[in-house]
Amino acid sequence: MSASTHDHDREEGLDFQPKFDATGLVTCVATDAATGDVLMVAHMNDEALRKTIATGEGWYFSRSRNALWRKGESSGQTQRVIEIRMDCDQDAVWIKVEQIGAACHTGRRSCFYRAVKGEGGNVSLSFVDAERLFDPAQVYRK
Amino acid sequence: MSASTHDHDREEGLDFQPKFDATGLVTCVATDAATGDVLMVAHMNDEALRKTIATGEGWYFSRSRNALWRKGESSGQTQRVIEIRMDCDQDAVWIKVEQIGAACHTGRRSCFYRAVKGEGGNVSLSFVDAERLFDPAQVYRK
Repeated sequence: MSASTHDHDREEGLDFQPKFDATGLVTCVATDAATGDVLMVAHMNDEALRKTIATGEGWYFSRSRNALWRKGESSGQTQRVIEIRMDCDQDAVWIKVEQIGAACHTGRRSCFYRAVKGEGGNVSLSFVDAERLFDPAQVYRK
Repeated sequence: MSASTHDHDREEGLDFQPKFDATGLVTCVATDAATGDVLMVAHMNDEALRKTIATGEGWYFSRSRNALWRKGESSGQTQRVIEIRMDCDQDAVWIKVEQIGAACHTGRRSCFYRAVKGEGGNVSLSFVDAERLFDPAQVYRK
């Protein structure tokens, strides 16, 4: 990796210069502030990022719905933001949150509820935490 | 969010069915297995993901170099994978790792070495951990 593939000012500076991708998004990782578990990986556009910083609640941009989204606005499972970090090239954000209930739309605490196991070339998944904290059919019905 | 925007089989199944994006990638979050800190966010193609599972070391795909990449192959800062998790829609992977030295190409332990602070509409960054564990000019010179 040569230094020329990176933006030195962006890496070393203290100026907030998020590097949004061609669709206007950065990646956001939300972890449980208490346990360090990764709760979800999602995306933020400029507005979602600024609202998260300004309000202390998790806001995202849904690619499937093409819409700004306050986490928990349908489900009540909101996120209180404890700390926000920016990565070296400012195209990824890490937020430490207090998560009310379940972060995952399936009703589970974390989206990462399955472990990956590989035996030889045969890869499979196994549930680590399959428990649902809510029933998505009830919570998301229109 | 309606259930129809999600693939139920992919979410509930124990079949390994990674959902690579249009460029053949999934997002990977690597956390420090000891502390829970997010070390880096990067991408994996099918080969990188399978090599990570098969070898127990972190492999990625570099978009800037358009190449498969074993973490630490230039810098010596390798990752031993302790656990691999897959998210609900199988487009993001979380690996817990034992990181040798620094995960970040700037020489820092984590890529997320700056905190985001917002006062009013004025957002700025501040160093949380600016310490370099190696000098990138030495490590990456050709």
